[in-house]
Amino acid sequence: MSASALNDPSLRAWIDIPFQHDFPIQNLPFGVFETDERGPRLAVAIGDYVLDLYVLSSFGFFDDLTELGDAQPRVFRRRSLNGFLRLGRPAWRAVRQRVSELLRHDNADLRDHPEAARAALVRQRDVAMLRPVKPANYTDFYSSLTHAANVGTMFRGPENPLLPNWRHLPVAYHGRASSIVASGTPIRRPQGQMLLPGGDAPSFGPSQQLDFELEMAFIVGTASTLGTPVATEEAENHIFGLCLFNDWSARDVQSWEYAPLGPFLGKNFGSSLGAWVVTLDALEPFRTAGPVQEPTPLPYLQTVGDHHFSIQLEAALAPAGGPETVLARPTFQGLYWSMAQQLAHHTSNGCNLEVGDVCASGTISDPDAFGSLLELAGRGTQPVPLADGTTRAFLLDGDTVTLRAYAEANGVRIGFGEVSGTILPAE
Amino acid sequence: MSASALNDPSLRAWIDIPFQHDFPIQNLPFGVFETDERGPRLAVAIGDYVLDLYVLSSFGFFDDLTELGDAQPRVFRRRSLNGFLRLGRPAWRAVRQRVSELLRHDNADLRDHPEAARAALVRQRDVAMLRPVKPANYTDFYSSLTHAANVGTMFRGPENPLLPNWRHLPVAYHGRASSIVASGTPIRRPQGQMLLPGGDAPSFGPSQQLDFELEMAFIVGTASTLGTPVATEEAENHIFGLCLFNDWSARDVQSWEYAPLGPFLGKNFGSSLGAWVVTLDALEPFRTAGPVQEPTPLPYLQTVGDHHFSIQLEAALAPAGGPETVLARPTFQGLYWSMAQQLAHHTSNGCNLEVGDVCASGTISDPDAFGSLLELAGRGTQPVPLADGTTRAFLLDGDTVTLRAYAEANGVRIGFGEVSGTILPAE
Repeated sequence: MSASALNDPSLRAWIDIPFQHDFPIQNLPFGVFETDERGPRLAVAIGDYVLDLYVLSSFGFFDDLTELGDAQPRVFRRRSLNGFLRLGRPAWRAVRQRVSELLRHDNADLRDHPEAARAALVRQRDVAMLRPVKPANYTDFYSSLTHAANVGTMFRGPENPLLPNWRHLPVAYHGRASSIVASGTPIRRPQGQMLLPGGDAPSFGPSQQLDFELEMAFIVGTASTLGTPVATEEAENHIFGLCLFNDWSARDVQSWEYAPLGPFLGKNFGSSLGAWVVTLDALEPFRTAGPVQEPTPLPYLQTVGDHHFSIQLEAALAPAGGPETVLARPTFQGLYWSMAQQLAHHTSNGCNLEVGDVCASGTISDPDAFGSLLELAGRGTQPVPLADGTTRAFLLDGDTVTLRAYAEANGVRIGFGEVSGTILPAE
Repeated sequence: MSASALNDPSLRAWIDIPFQHDFPIQNLPFGVFETDERGPRLAVAIGDYVLDLYVLSSFGFFDDLTELGDAQPRVFRRRSLNGFLRLGRPAWRAVRQRVSELLRHDNADLRDHPEAARAALVRQRDVAMLRPVKPANYTDFYSSLTHAANVGTMFRGPENPLLPNWRHLPVAYHGRASSIVASGTPIRRPQGQMLLPGGDAPSFGPSQQLDFELEMAFIVGTASTLGTPVATEEAENHIFGLCLFNDWSARDVQSWEYAPLGPFLGKNFGSSLGAWVVTLDALEPFRTAGPVQEPTPLPYLQTVGDHHFSIQLEAALAPAGGPETVLARPTFQGLYWSMAQQLAHHTSNGCNLEVGDVCASGTISDPDAFGSLLELAGRGTQPVPLADGTTRAFLLDGDTVTLRAYAEANGVRIGFGEVSGTILPAE
């Protein structure tokens, strides 16, 4: 059975999965969970359950998967996917295929093995999801034309929305890997140095311009060698899958500190990584062309075929105890630069990729759907109305931001779950 | 015996150590080496030898050091210091003190134990030194006023040498941890996108403006908690020690890419980390006041006492097969922002430190001694004469850059060894 057969819309699982659920049998994203009774375990999401891969391995369901070598079962009892990723794509594919087989409605191996099935399937509401990977390095791109132009217009005026380099290369900067946290982890409002409007000297205090950034991140599953660039046509071979990502930002801190070396404390107080990594294999049916690139990129950034993916995104905000308001629904396929181009650019100077690298897209905005409050509220000038009657220029303590994403076709939804975080007051 | 007693200038080792050698008994820096026969081992430098800590541990010389718990001997047979650092400052101090005792001219425990002494002492010329730590995260500061003003003048003109934030906070950016290499590792000339002079569109090719940056880096030995700032008076408790650091830079790539998010491919093709980490304890006699800071920093950046260290630096360049030319001898104590201020700023928003973090100073330039070719050769306009009769605007293939550093007082030199790298032609 080929990898693409796992995407067949007619596949059905023996577990009940509601229509338009994020995690049908065609998806099978990978993550890491723990419970009070179980230490950290690798899992695949199926419907409202996590499927414990350590249990499956321990019961022998992977015994014939030679791609795993002697790494099982222990590689499935880890705090991150990194060890599993190091086994390589054949191992990832072998496990995903076996899980797909075991979950098919016409396969009784797990279904009719009550002891194994009871141990392997745990309701998602009963588990804590961890970061799926220990981030080795974190790079943030800036690949949405609408976002870059919006921000450029705000900071430099409408006659100069994009800097001269923007259409020639996927602009990016290094972020902080240590402060990437799991979805659900509260985000403490940072303190920082800022220049208040009209002030002639900076002050230090809690950020008053705390923001979210709706992003997607790809996870590097295959390392590259220092000194050896990865060509665009090889780039996707280094990607394991995609995650939701929220790159929380303190705009007042950022705008005072960022020249000339880029964002630092305005970003590195915390970023939230979605719990589930959707494999590139599961997204294969959603390949699509990207926007026309004008001027034509230099040869090292040119690609053949479709390297964008049709994914619907959503950002929502809920005040403490209040109802949620959907703020924007941009699309992932609107990004100007593809992941293949980002990765080829990143390595074009010989920079090496490591397993577990997190490479985020930058804020994703469509012309009518902005992925940050900075853009939605016009740098604070047009506060956004919420369902509870209040408005937001920037985030308030107690606000919860939730990002969601899915691809959908032929009645099958490949969902990413959600990434959420609630703002705690400054210390 | 207190930690400071180990710095007593009258201490002598039973190993012959030439006058003004980098590694007398008062220094005892930590590193990691391997040989054809031995896998990676932790070591301390003494004279022309490395002292194999795994051997000392295996022979029982650390048996009574309860600070090591049950981590020995295996913690000394690792590819990085990270595991040893996680044991904490009491363990670092206990090992350094025991090593000092064992090497004292009046201590016979190791000296008169031929089997142990022969196994433990290996000539430095017979070993390969590795990166001392696996870098967890890498941050590069920009803390030399002379360097920042030189670069600012070149890029923005003499009326605007420093940006408004520079005297208010230690400007920094995140670098790439994956491409930090050991001293001696050749550096491949990177290819990259750049805008050639007079061009109206960028091209892609080997960098023509390859440069070095003379820096010092501190190594984080004690982690901090996400969401909890570290105050200036606590900052040095998180620092294990200091290393030489060369932040190789492709100026043409950097100047085209860096706006608005900072340096990326112009830097992340490689950075070189010195083999020996000199502990803060060994540098204690060299504390000194820093420059007067005007305006007075905000309270969270204020310090009491001396937090700079008097260290003499040197950058030298040797063409392939040619003699070496010393290019500059700036000083570490000239930095505007101290390490304590850098670390307090870095965590002021709650950003967490991890064991093995590398935090570099940024290029260190004194008014008459510049730490980069960019500054030495006036952005290429005044090529630097070398001892072989050639000149350099930027680095040529085959050039070797070597950085050195030492502190010295009362006839005792606390040296850092060197960090060197040779430029290989582009692929």
